[in-house]
This record gives sequence, C-alpha cells and structure tokens, in this order.
Amino acid sequence: MIPGVEDVFTLLKEHQIPYYLLTNDASRSPRKLAEFYQKAGIEEITADKMISSGMLAKKFLKAKVREGIVAYLGTEQSAHYVENSGFTTCPVGSLTTENFDNINALVLLDDEGFNWEKDINIALNLIRKRNIPVIVANTDRTYPVSKNEVALAIGGISMLMEKIVRKIFIRFGKPDSQMFQFTFDRLQNHGHFGRKDVLMVGDTLVTDILGGNHFGLDTALVLTGNTLPHQAEAAISSTGIIPTYVCESVVG
Amino acid sequence: MIPGVEDVFTLLKEHQIPYYLLTNDASRSPRKLAEFYQKAGIEEITADKMISSGMLAKKFLKAKVREGIVAYLGTEQSAHYVENSGFTTCPVGSLTTENFDNINALVLLDDEGFNWEKDINIALNLIRKRNIPVIVANTDRTYPVSKNEVALAIGGISMLMEKIVRKIFIRFGKPDSQMFQFTFDRLQNHGHFGRKDVLMVGDTLVTDILGGNHFGLDTALVLTGNTLPHQAEAAISSTGIIPTYVCESVVG
Amino acid sequence: MIPGVEDVFTLLKEHQIPYYLLTNDASRSPRKLAEFYQKAGIEEITADKMISSGMLAKKFLKAKVREGIVAYLGTEQSAHYVENSGFTTCPVGSLTTENFDNINALVLLDDEGFNWEKDINIALNLIRKRNIPVIVANTDRTYPVSKNEVALAIGGISMLMEKIVRKIFIRFGKPDSQMFQFTFDRLQNHGHFGRKDVLMVGDTLVTDILGGNHFGLDTALVLTGNTLPHQAEAAISSTGIIPTYVCESVVG
Amino acid sequence: MIPGVEDVFTLLKEHQIPYYLLTNDASRSPRKLAEFYQKAGIEEITADKMISSGMLAKKFLKAKVREGIVAYLGTEQSAHYVENSGFTTCPVGSLTTENFDNINALVLLDDEGFNWEKDINIALNLIRKRNIPVIVANTDRTYPVSKNEVALAIGGISMLMEKIVRKIFIRFGKPDSQMFQFTFDRLQNHGHFGRKDVLMVGDTLVTDILGGNHFGLDTALVLTGNTLPHQAEAAISSTGIIPTYVCESVVG
Repeated sequence: MIPGVEDVFTLLKEHQIPYYLLTNDASRSPRKLAEFYQKAGIEEITADKMISSGMLAKKFLKAKVREGIVAYLGTEQSAHYVENSGFTTCPVGSLTTENFDNINALVLLDDEGFNWEKDINIALNLIRKRNIPVIVANTDRTYPVSKNEVALAIGGISMLMEKIVRKIFIRFGKPDSQMFQFTFDRLQNHGHFGRKDVLMVGDTLVTDILGGNHFGLDTALVLTGNTLPHQAEAAISSTGIIPTYVCESVVG
Repeated sequence: MIPGVEDVFTLLKEHQIPYYLLTNDASRSPRKLAEFYQKAGIEEITADKMISSGMLAKKFLKAKVREGIVAYLGTEQSAHYVENSGFTTCPVGSLTTENFDNINALVLLDDEGFNWEKDINIALNLIRKRNIPVIVANTDRTYPVSKNEVALAIGGISMLMEKIVRKIFIRFGKPDSQMFQFTFDRLQNHGHFGRKDVLMVGDTLVTDILGGNHFGLDTALVLTGNTLPHQAEAAISSTGIIPTYVCESVVG
Repeated sequence: MIPGVEDVFTLLKEHQIPYYLLTNDASRSPRKLAEFYQKAGIEEITADKMISSGMLAKKFLKAKVREGIVAYLGTEQSAHYVENSGFTTCPVGSLTTENFDNINALVLLDDEGFNWEKDINIALNLIRKRNIPVIVANTDRTYPVSKNEVALAIGGISMLMEKIVRKIFIRFGKPDSQMFQFTFDRLQNHGHFGRKDVLMVGDTLVTDILGGNHFGLDTALVLTGNTLPHQAEAAISSTGIIPTYVCESVVG
Repeated sequence: MIPGVEDVFTLLKEHQIPYYLLTNDASRSPRKLAEFYQKAGIEEITADKMISSGMLAKKFLKAKVREGIVAYLGTEQSAHYVENSGFTTCPVGSLTTENFDNINALVLLDDEGFNWEKDINIALNLIRKRNIPVIVANTDRTYPVSKNEVALAIGGISMLMEKIVRKIFIRFGKPDSQMFQFTFDRLQNHGHFGRKDVLMVGDTLVTDILGGNHFGLDTALVLTGNTLPHQAEAAISSTGIIPTYVCESVVG
C-alpha cells in the first residue's frame, strides 16, 4: 500500500467526489476485496465501492449458463463467489474424461487453488472434446508480487490455453469496456455525469489507460505501481497508449 | 439482398418488436446507410434504426480529440461523416513528413478512397514518428464482394499496421461491447428490456455471435451470409463461439 | 507402437535404404531414445539412427555458451544430456533472485521434472531481469498421451513465456531446417543423395510435413498418429501444408 | 552507402578473408545485386559473393514445383529470375477466378510491380480457393527508404495475407537457418571452416543477429543501418537478441 494513499480517499470524501475501485480480480467477492483495504486502514472503502471483473463474469454466467455444471480453475473461494442458483461448480482437478459430458462451461478464475501441471492439461482436453464456452474472469497476464517480481495470472494461463486449442474465450476485465460501462452506470446514482466528467486513474497502460481512453474518459497514469517512473516515457511511446496525464504518485 | 428479407421487417413492425441494424461500417452516415436498404425496397429501415461502428468512432473523436488535424485513410465521405467542430480532417495522401507535427490522431475509416501502396506507407511513418492515438472505425478484416470472394477491409489493413509499428490501436465495432451497449441503451426508448429479452441475429461468428454472447444476449447464427451452411458446424467447433440458435435463413 | 511397424524397418534394411528417426525430444540422449524402440522389439533402431532436437540444442550450447551456469526447466536426465565441459547446469527451482547474476543462459528441455507453478514464475523473473539467451530444445506445443488426449509440451510453455516477456527465444526442432540439414548431412555417409532422393515421413503437418516441404523434400503424411484419417483433409486445407503423399498407415 | 565501406572489402581481400553478402532480396539475380555495389565503387563485390533469399526460393521452386503455372506478386524482373524450365510464371494481376485452377503455387517476390489494392485481393481469393503452396521469398516486414522512413516489404504483406487466410506460408531469408547453411557450405570452397571461425555482421537484430546466433556463429551488430546507436541497448534488451559484439560502424 502506498504511504499516504488513505488521505486521497479522505479528500475524495470531503469534496463529495464519487469514486469506484476497478480491479481485474475474480478471486473473491467485493466484500472480501474491500476488507483488504479496510485492514490496511482505509475504512472508506466498502464493498459497494468495488467493481471487479469477477462481478461481470458472475453476471455473464447468470445470464448465459442456466443449468448443469461449470468447471473452474481457481480457489474454492473464487468458485463460491461466482456460483449461482442455476448451476453448480466443480474444480477441474475433480474431472475425469468420463464426466466431461456433464460440463456446460469452463471458467478461469484464479491462478491459485489448483495443481498447474495436472489441471491445465485436464482443462485443455476438456476444451478440445467439448465445445463449451470458456470464460476468463481476469484478463491480467501477470501481477506484481514484489517491487521487481511478477507472477503469471490466470489471464496469462488462459492466453496459453486459447493458443493451444485455437478457440476464442470470453474475457471480462479492464481494458474491456463492459467494466467501464458498469462503473459509469453506477456513477449515475450520485448525480448526472457525462464521460468528460470522469477521470480514470491507474498504474497500467494496457488495462487501465487503454480501457479508459477507449471508453472516452480522461486518464491519469500514476507511476507508483506497475509502471515505474524511468519506464513511463518508453512504455507510452512503444505501446502508443497515451494517458491524458502522468502523475508521479497518486498521493499529493 | 436475401429474397424475402423485407417480410421480416414487416413482421417485426406488425408485432411491434423494436430492432436495430448493427454494422461495422464507417464509410458513411446512418442516413446514407439506411438509404441503401430503402433503395432495395425495405422502407422500414430509416436512419434511426442504424447503429454503425462509425457512430462510435465519431463519438470517441468528439470526446477525446478536441483540436488540431485528424489524418484519415478512407473516402472523403467517410471523413466528412466523422468530422467535428473540434478538429479538421486531412487525407493521409496529402501529408508530407514536414506536416506530421500538426496531426493529433489518425483514423482508419474505409479501404477505399486512397492509394494503398503510397498511403499505407505514409501512415506507417506517421505512426512511427508521432505518438498519436490511432482509431480503427471498422474492425472487420475482410468483407464479402460476391458469394465466394472477399476483399480486405480497413480492419485487416489496420491489423497489419498495428503489427508493423507494434502499438495498440483503439477499435470500434462488433464484437466490442460498446456497440452492443449503445444499441441496448437505445432499446430502452421502446420499453424496459433486460438482456434476456434481446436476440442478436447475425451471419458472422467472430463479430455478431461472439459480441452478442459476451454481452449476455441470446444469439442466432443465420447461414445466408458470411457463414455457409456446409461450414457452420466446423466453424462453430473450431472457434468455440457457440450461438444459442442456428437458422438456415433469416427468412421463413 | 503401431502393430507391424517393425516390418517397415526390416524392409528398409533388406533394401539397404538408409533412414533416420527425427524427434522433437530433448529429454534424453540418442542412446536412451533408441532403447525405447529396442524394448518395443525394433532392434534395428540404434542410437546412431536417432536425430533429436536435443542434439541440436546441445550443439548450440557448446558453440555459444562457453562458461558459467545454464539454468534449465526439465528433468535431471535432460540436463545431464546437454551438459558440457564449458558450463554447469542448475535447475530453475534451485535459483533465487540473489543468484540470478551467475546465470548465462536458460534452456527449456522438458515439461517434466519441475514444479510448474513455482518454477515457471522463477524462470519468467529470471528472463525479465537478465538479458540472456533462452533456448527451447523442443518446439512441440503439445504431445499425445493417449488416443484422444494431449499434454502441454515444453514448447507450449515456452510460447507462453515468450509472449509474457516479449522476447525472442532460440528454438530447435522440426519444422526448423537445421533438423533436416543435420539429417541430410548424415545421409551422405551412406552414398551421395540429393534432396529429391529423400522422403520425409511423419504424422504431424506443422512439424514433419512443413519442415520437409520447406527443405525441398517429398513428404508423406501418415494417418496413424497425430493426424487422424477423418481430420486429414480438413487439416491440410486449413493449414495450407500440403504433403506430397497421404498414407493410411506407415505399415503396408 | 556508408562512407569508407569500400576499405573494409579491400582489407578483407588483402587478408584473404573469405566473405559473402547475405540479403533478403528476391527482386533480382545475384548479378544484378552485385552491379549495385560495383556502381557504388566497390568492385570487389561480384555475383558469386551474393547470397539472396531469392536464390533459396528459386531452389525450392525448382525442387518442389515441377510443372504448371506459378502466380507471383512482384516485378517482372523478379519473376524472370526465379523462373524455371519446369513451370511458367504469371503475374497475379493477370489472373481471373476462371483460371485459378491452373495455378500450382503462389510466390511473393517484391513489394513493387503490382497494384496493391487490386492484386492483394486477387491473391487472397486465390489462396482461399486453391490449396497451393505459398512461398515468401523475402521475410523482411519493412525496409528503410531514408534515414528515418521505412516502407512495407513483401514480407509484411505476406504476414497480413497469412493472418487473413490462416494458412502457413513457406518463407526464405534471414533469420531462417537455410540462408546461413547455404553460405556456410559455400565458405568451405575457401578452406575448412567451423562455425566458430565465422562472424556474422549485420544491422538488424531480428534477421541478421538472431539468425547468426541460432546457427551458432559469433555475431556483430553494426549501428550504421536499421539499428540506430541510441536505440541499440533498448532494442537488445527488449528483444532478448544478444549480439556477441556491438560496433559503432562497419568501418574503422
């Protein structure tokens, strides 16, 4: 957590500026996501402030998968969150080729909670044999685990699976515009806002800034996370993703 | 035009079922697009029924490009349509490396109206030298010109340019969800509709059906256009894009 | 093993037709590879008949990595095979970010012998921090584990890693022409052979047939392995990789 | 031409160091390629010093296309060069869908000599309808036309066509190892040389240096062409293609 970030939220509250936190995270419910911030001392952030890619995946599953069993890669917690009255979930690791026929969809939720070597191979064979929708509930390819290290996210694993089976998966999360639309619709509960009234703040060009630009918002790249200050200029010019503003920090 | 298709629109009218026509076309205004149908004898289709990727590109340009010159590849008509009080347009073919500095955005509108060999190269050098947003107003890679022949669309040309310069362009058109959201919002003028009340009908898996599925709609693939009856099964299983329904024809 | 395949080798011997077995396998030495066939009753196949992608990777490492430590993903056996007087090998799983600086190359040998979740992430961070050559000793993305099931090969894992770090790895194995050149040079020990005198027989279009065609050889696709009889026509027409001959079986 | 480059060739001659010039160019014969250097005052460079991707494409066509008509994109001169006693050539622009059936192969030779808009579309439809080998005789995606400007090469156009039709073409030219093998074999006419005795000098990481490294040669990147001095470090670290040496200039 960036020191001083709690002041930003206090400031937003004082000025009655509505805001939401958008995250490509399908590993837990908004309530659990908010708890993380609250434990870090930012009490302003409650479940209703969180917009996650998991919420959109859940909405999709509710609309499009009306019955049967949905197989998943991820933790039990992540499956519990997307679960629905219409279908039950089953971890990929419990499948055998014999019960492939009962599966109506595969959802990729989290990079944790399963045996990569064993379960990625089961999932590949499931998709090869059964023509079912595959839903990716987190589009991030990697996520930071320390200042200089990353880990492969479920979005990275799903990219590999997509290439191997040569099918097209259904993805939820930034930069896709559904994430921004969902937030924009919520904002209207706080007054009448046009796109030009909204600023998207983020630390990642290919998700936060690309998605914000595409949706017609002003965008601010902050250099306190995924994009380091000495890389910013090169990253902007090599990707062609141009933020409206670049800020050293979200604080101050 | 498919024989008998006019009856479909008559039927929709009789039953008071609201509908829109979604097209990845940025070559002309909704009014001009509607005229095409009217000339073919379908008088029901008026400008307000058309939703085009050009409309979204125009909206984006209005929101994000507030001044200066926007270079374009396409016909004069297509440029005229997206033009705006905030900026003026200039065909790529009129640019020289000397006036690259005045360009604030590049928009790819149509595969016609320019000299491919000369102007694609100018556009490539413009993007290499100037870090400006590049907007693709039609995501189709090809379009049918006869029963068995296709032509390269501006979406195909933009894919090539994107690979060469290794930057990320901003794309409008099916299957992106903005197109479906825009339509869904319009539908609300006719009553209160949920996603489950809407059917997306189309002839192309990777745009119409993928986009409709992703947005949470029921989808119907018709086999009277891009996807031929004998290819349908193989196309569905090789792409993993699964329509709710498959119909021999939009008619009948 | 296909029933009757031993007769093919007896026939080749009787007619004094020289042949080699080409395999994208870097998991063991030619001697160990040959033992597999001998145990299955084909005694003709001795170590000198085997040409593996591992042999080429080993040759590369010998020529280009003259000292230091080579990190690897794979089994101990595979590392032992490529090892060399010039350098020592170290499994990726034993690395910590502290000793990244001693590593001079990374070689991807086998999909077995390591913890996928832990070691793929270490390897990704190694490549992000250290600009060292990454060598892929098996280009196959998947391999068959039963009649209808595949498993991810190290070539598939390396494709993922390459996309994530956006660097270009050095690959050995079919369809690359080095594999065919190496074999072609060996053939000259048995007489003077031109390319038109050689037939490449294989069960996989994208490795065996593509590579053989590219090298200027006649090619025969056999339908007793990766490409099933009912898929052959569609696979040939969708990939555009055209064998000179298609044979129901290598036997017969 | 870089000032002083002629001295390099004089030096090579004086020290009796054999050398070849490798070029991804299929637009003309080795003799015509050599004339270019001779006219620029480097008389040492004769036809036998030139190794072009066109030579390999020609060799392939000779081996694999034994009769019929080969369609081409390129100049007449380029077609004349690859032509062969076994087949005749025909420019794509002269084809109609009626005579598609007579075509046995398509070869992509040069970005000049044809109407891009018209002929790329004809070529796409030819490949969609007829399952014939497509040969790319120049793998470069772009080529420099001035210090800061590039133009799309036939290798770039072929990448687009390959993506659209989703088939795999047969490519000749650096970095493919056939180009290096061909040169290496020729070198043996001047004495016995191992790979460690050969230095590959070039200005482009993804063709010259990658190909040289892959073949097991020492490599020297010179900063007087495609890779500019201020970009070299970033280009090496972002691609992971590591030359043995980096030289400010090929001269001095």
